Amino acid sequence: MAEKEDKFLVPQDTYLKAGIHIGTKFRTKYMEQFIYKTRPDGLSVLNLQKINERIDIAANLLAQYAPEDILIVSRRENGWKAAKEFGRLTGIKVFAGRYPPGILTNSDLDSFMEVKIILVTDAWPDRNAVNDANKIGIPVIALCDTNNQPNNIDLVIPCNNKGKKALGLLFWILAKEYLKKRKLISDDKEFTGKIEDFTEE
Amino acid sequence: MAEKEDKFLVPQDTYLKAGIHIGTKFRTKYMEQFIYKTRPDGLSVLNLQKINERIDIAANLLAQYAPEDILIVSRRENGWKAAKEFGRLTGIKVFAGRYPPGILTNSDLDSFMEVKIILVTDAWPDRNAVNDANKIGIPVIALCDTNNQPNNIDLVIPCNNKGKKALGLLFWILAKEYLKKRKLISDDKEFTGKIEDFTEE
Repeated sequence: MAEKEDKFLVPQDTYLKAGIHIGTKFRTKYMEQFIYKTRPDGLSVLNLQKINERIDIAANLLAQYAPEDILIVSRRENGWKAAKEFGRLTGIKVFAGRYPPGILTNSDLDSFMEVKIILVTDAWPDRNAVNDANKIGIPVIALCDTNNQPNNIDLVIPCNNKGKKALGLLFWILAKEYLKKRKLISDDKEFTGKIEDFTEE
Repeated sequence: MAEKEDKFLVPQDTYLKAGIHIGTKFRTKYMEQFIYKTRPDGLSVLNLQKINERIDIAANLLAQYAPEDILIVSRRENGWKAAKEFGRLTGIKVFAGRYPPGILTNSDLDSFMEVKIILVTDAWPDRNAVNDANKIGIPVIALCDTNNQPNNIDLVIPCNNKGKKALGLLFWILAKEYLKKRKLISDDKEFTGKIEDFTEE
């Protein structure tokens, strides 16, 4: 039988170096299921296998949609570089910055866009986008740290959604898996994305 | 812009007649986000749009997997007929009855099987299957009523997971959508499943 290790999308060491598993000192009841332990300094540590598994599920779900039908929203500045590079490689729409309510719901706005699914980097700062998505009844994927509530989110990806390196790695993996699952590239070797371009200025 | 109504997988009336939206008198904190209201008799009523949306997401996710890589588990007898008919039409594996721990994890068992994703009709009575799936790190989809906890579940489908009609309709829709998304049938008209065969003895 396959070992759990076989299923990791990147080596565990790559995950750990990016700190994708480092949570916050605050933990919601819902997020407890994804928490592996609490460090002596009080920081919660997320379960790496669950992080990996849910990135894979999210990539599977996103791959059901064409790039023009997907919107990524990131109010948090640490996610901008990663989200933009993700958008460049996949053709997926990206909204980096403060999302003004109505973009998804008000067809009178110049900025109006129709999409079929959204992914937000944090359910709380990106709540305007989450609310709009709920109004029009499209699925919402959200990166959720240990301090997030899962309300109105359809698929939670547990992870450090605050650090530049963690967000960079996450979007790098998502881009690679999305392109593979859409059969736009045939394997990891064909992926031209560089992790540095997702994190550095 | 498309109205929400356009997105329903079956007419709203069909959902309502099957009672797919009727919850229980008990509600967990997590499930509150899916609850539309509480009836005077104390029963919680689930939000039909959310039910519909998550069935669609679940079908999208399942459609990423070949039939032989999927396992449906239902300890609850009211789900047996529906799950079996679902299995007959899709070729997906079905375990109806008490799931003995180890089927997914212990390759020494005669009953051992390797699958890549499971769907359970109730996170609680089917917890042995959920635990096994977590051990080997495969995604878990669970039908969850208002009284369910979402722990260790990757994708929750909010619905009445107790009634025969509700479970029948749910698996009928899932079969239809799975076959369409796998391109085994081209539209609803080609679907040969009869709702009666999912519910009646």
